[in-house]
Amino acid sequence: MQSAIPPPVTQLVEAFSRLPGIGPKTASRLTYFLLRAPDDYSLGLADALAKLKTLTKLCGSCFNITVDDPCPICSAGGRDASTIAVVEEPLDLMAIERTGIYRGRYHVLHGAISPVSGVGPDDLKIRELLQRVAGAGVREVIIATNPGLEGDATAMYLQRELADSGLIVTRLARGLPTGGDLEYVDSVTLMRALEGRS
Amino acid sequence: MQSAIPPPVTQLVEAFSRLPGIGPKTASRLTYFLLRAPDDYSLGLADALAKLKTLTKLCGSCFNITVDDPCPICSAGGRDASTIAVVEEPLDLMAIERTGIYRGRYHVLHGAISPVSGVGPDDLKIRELLQRVAGAGVREVIIATNPGLEGDATAMYLQRELADSGLIVTRLARGLPTGGDLEYVDSVTLMRALEGRS
Repeated sequence: MQSAIPPPVTQLVEAFSRLPGIGPKTASRLTYFLLRAPDDYSLGLADALAKLKTLTKLCGSCFNITVDDPCPICSAGGRDASTIAVVEEPLDLMAIERTGIYRGRYHVLHGAISPVSGVGPDDLKIRELLQRVAGAGVREVIIATNPGLEGDATAMYLQRELADSGLIVTRLARGLPTGGDLEYVDSVTLMRALEGRS
Repeated sequence: MQSAIPPPVTQLVEAFSRLPGIGPKTASRLTYFLLRAPDDYSLGLADALAKLKTLTKLCGSCFNITVDDPCPICSAGGRDASTIAVVEEPLDLMAIERTGIYRGRYHVLHGAISPVSGVGPDDLKIRELLQRVAGAGVREVIIATNPGLEGDATAMYLQRELADSGLIVTRLARGLPTGGDLEYVDSVTLMRALEGRS
């Protein structure tokens, strides 16, 4: 049977399918949506994709994604350089920024320690963090890794490495999420909430 | 507050968000996935997007998406030119092709009649269909629009337009989907299955 699908369509379906959470059906749907949408729509997306890698780099200090090095947060005069929040990913940094209450700086590890996935401390920006906090002016390190197995393993590793540094090392509080219902909270969260009661 | 998100990232998140079924959170996740993926990954996607519109067109006969005009199905010698299956979208054509049992040709309407969305017969490739089937050699028109309100409205319109054409006009059978469980079938489908019992 001759294929009814032209190669440019197949190629885009395949490219979309490689994205996380997008299966072959969604990839087809997106492709046919773009086929029917105005030209500047798909070309705009193509342009944004091409610029993503060429125009951005990692900040040499905090390793957040940025156009300018150092990034706007590291170069902002109004932010407290003595406090560094350590996060796994740039998206975590943005979640903290959205709260609007944190005025310190960040350090993006670009992952978490995960023996299962073969990610060790040397695969993350941990050496850079230790060098950075050893410099003058840093007072507190807030470990803001994700509240899961890998985030906890990373936090424990960092706490051990920073134990003799003389720095204040804190972690984000664990407990009940605001707006949740006690009935539906998992038992590990509830246990942590009980332990950390105040 | 200075934005922590560089413009190339924001632009791609916005471009992804305009795709159907992709919200701002998924768009962020896709963007940060691409930031961490190898360069040729996002560039490959950009290239496939750019080629999608420049290399494809609609077949002048059946209006399927194609690189060559006429498309491989319309130009295939082994296919029955006397039978035309009318579908709403190119994806519907592909669904029928996957069954492997249909040897006729197609006509893609590029939509369905929908007064709610302001889509009338003139917005679809209906005039082209009527001209095409009026030509010599066509014997049967299979209306294969979707089994829903808009597909049914389109089918009824076509049946009326083709009533005096002398052509055999058929519709796809309606009934129970194979592999389904009677208990979970909706009552409209069950009603249709009862009416069409054989």
